[in-house]
Amino acid sequence: MTDDTAVPQSILVDDIGSLVTNDPSRGRGVVGEVEEAALVIEQGRVAWSGPRSQAPAADARVDAAGRCVLPGFVDSHSHIVFAGDRSREFAARMSGLAYSAGGIHTTVEATRKASDSALLSGARTLLREARSQGTTTLEVKSGYGLTVADERRSLEIARRITDEVTFLGAHVVAPEYADDPDGYVDLVSGPMLDSCAPLSRWIDVFCERGAFDEQASRRVLAAGRERGLLLRVHGNQLGEGPGVRLAVEMGAASVDHCTYLAPEDIEALAEAAARPEPTVATLLPGVDFSTRQSYPNARKLIDAGARVALASDCNPGSCFTSSLAFCIAVAVRDTGMTPDEAVWAATAGGALALRRDDVGHLAPGARADLILLEAPNHLYLAYRPGVPQVAAVWKDGELVAGSPDNGA
Amino acid sequence: MTDDTAVPQSILVDDIGSLVTNDPSRGRGVVGEVEEAALVIEQGRVAWSGPRSQAPAADARVDAAGRCVLPGFVDSHSHIVFAGDRSREFAARMSGLAYSAGGIHTTVEATRKASDSALLSGARTLLREARSQGTTTLEVKSGYGLTVADERRSLEIARRITDEVTFLGAHVVAPEYADDPDGYVDLVSGPMLDSCAPLSRWIDVFCERGAFDEQASRRVLAAGRERGLLLRVHGNQLGEGPGVRLAVEMGAASVDHCTYLAPEDIEALAEAAARPEPTVATLLPGVDFSTRQSYPNARKLIDAGARVALASDCNPGSCFTSSLAFCIAVAVRDTGMTPDEAVWAATAGGALALRRDDVGHLAPGARADLILLEAPNHLYLAYRPGVPQVAAVWKDGELVAGSPDNGA
Repeated sequence: MTDDTAVPQSILVDDIGSLVTNDPSRGRGVVGEVEEAALVIEQGRVAWSGPRSQAPAADARVDAAGRCVLPGFVDSHSHIVFAGDRSREFAARMSGLAYSAGGIHTTVEATRKASDSALLSGARTLLREARSQGTTTLEVKSGYGLTVADERRSLEIARRITDEVTFLGAHVVAPEYADDPDGYVDLVSGPMLDSCAPLSRWIDVFCERGAFDEQASRRVLAAGRERGLLLRVHGNQLGEGPGVRLAVEMGAASVDHCTYLAPEDIEALAEAAARPEPTVATLLPGVDFSTRQSYPNARKLIDAGARVALASDCNPGSCFTSSLAFCIAVAVRDTGMTPDEAVWAATAGGALALRRDDVGHLAPGARADLILLEAPNHLYLAYRPGVPQVAAVWKDGELVAGSPDNGA
Repeated sequence: MTDDTAVPQSILVDDIGSLVTNDPSRGRGVVGEVEEAALVIEQGRVAWSGPRSQAPAADARVDAAGRCVLPGFVDSHSHIVFAGDRSREFAARMSGLAYSAGGIHTTVEATRKASDSALLSGARTLLREARSQGTTTLEVKSGYGLTVADERRSLEIARRITDEVTFLGAHVVAPEYADDPDGYVDLVSGPMLDSCAPLSRWIDVFCERGAFDEQASRRVLAAGRERGLLLRVHGNQLGEGPGVRLAVEMGAASVDHCTYLAPEDIEALAEAAARPEPTVATLLPGVDFSTRQSYPNARKLIDAGARVALASDCNPGSCFTSSLAFCIAVAVRDTGMTPDEAVWAATAGGALALRRDDVGHLAPGARADLILLEAPNHLYLAYRPGVPQVAAVWKDGELVAGSPDNGA
């Protein structure tokens, strides 16, 4: 496919049956779909994209053979630095049996005991798996350490595999502080943050009954902001609560879950969407799938004007999927998104939730993070649920999974 | 992995972390799970399976490296001989738009126009895709031809790729007979059946409002039985109706969909389960997923004593998935099955629905149709929805997809 003797200066991805640009000014719908398209990669970036008939020359050529090309998925929410196996706990939950497993604490215990190399190896395996399914940008959180040392090493491991690193010391109160939750908030927003902030881009807090209340969440976020971290919030997963409004008030880039929203929450998210730096509503329908919860109402959010992203929340407890394609299919089935909106949300939406303008779209200048689908258009992601359809993945213009060769 | 110079007489699949035998007398639960197991393949059959410590010697060895082995999926319901693309129709439905597409008739029109080689190539691509996801036995129906010649060539193509061929001339009334539905039933149970019966093992009818009523369905099934065909029924998909009771009364091997059941339907299926040749309730939750219908209640069926199978219904209109793993995950989420029951239903259940005792289990004598999962146990199929976890697939003892090499 490329010159064997030298790295080509430019690569033409040709005969794209349908190209998702995510630029509505360049094509059809919110995803800016261009049929019979082409795209040129140069120095890891999109140098050109548009109708095939207008494509410029390039040094090398990849044949999309009529298949679909879309931006790599931007998965803005994952917890893949952990140890331990919770499949039996999942099965017990799905069998309706009572179970006494300690939820997050089971994973905290196993993670603390695990070696650095075991944690890194597990995270790398999941990263590879996500990449081969089309995820080219992956946010990774700490939150299964809950001591200064264990949170720090979780972040060090996360940094080995991604730039989008989030400090989530405020995942739950550490077991050592069960009788002194305020003391744990002091730790997270004091010494733990001091140790962890230099390793992180983001700070996050689980603002939910059973985790951290509004006041504690506000303290954690404010302390993070003082250290120069950008803000994210877990909120409104298990019931209505202050998470969404706190996130909007403090200018968080995203509030994640949004399963239970009051009318004022939707209003707040709609208002926040109009800001230069919006607060995105990130839906995690894989969690609602795997916990038999009800689903968030994306339709209402989008119709109100909110910006909506989709992410996996890949974690061993509430949702162990790494498949954005699966999340797209469920979002279409159960949250009221159209297929176009869901594909946008898992690409451009994720980028917005990470305040990134270099990923999630394929206009010139974007990173050449591409998925070649074994399908004629992006609708197939929702149309063919569960079917692996990612033929090849490029990150920064480099082939990182699969092959563009047309097996058919 | 095997001797390069000769086909080994026997292969030991060793260090299986968890083996699903589907023989409750040999291990835990309905799936007969044996931990730390091994299995010996000889002449395409399972020669031995059980605890690793008792494994006999063999000529060659495959290292499962602690991973899970289960029987290949038995997908007892598919419609993969067709032409045409209905992704835009799917998107319109999921976007809540009115659409005027003619449903099945769109596919009938495209299928009639397609060349034999295009139909065969499409079916082969889907078979390969299903196989790489673990399906080792796949039933394939006609039903997009609806003329004698087009039904016949659909079946000829189906026979090229599977032994489980079903004549479904009674899918819907052919457009030419729109004003004479009885005339179409005459055709299906007369000349069309004469032409198609020699190519088929099964006859099927879509017994539903808008398709064929009880009387017409009975005529079609009776005519098929006279020609030596075994019976299957599509029933109770869109509402309650006579399908289930007709299937049980006539001794069909399976009645498929079962989404809307009256108490008497459940009773009938429970009684039929006790027969030497039961009528299985085959659930197709991918259809309910892709059409936003409500889901069937597997819990009620199983608790009443019915035998339940899971199948994909892979088809371009109502469900274009070929992933039994996806169907398992949805069945656990939304039909009340436990993960064990769902895995059983997609393997042993499918075998029962096809009246096969050589597939769907891994006791000695069974066909060596195996899935090696990239996971420690079979629960991961429901625990990790959407994630491709099939590492390797053997059919009749031969590796047909993936590789047993441990990438980790």
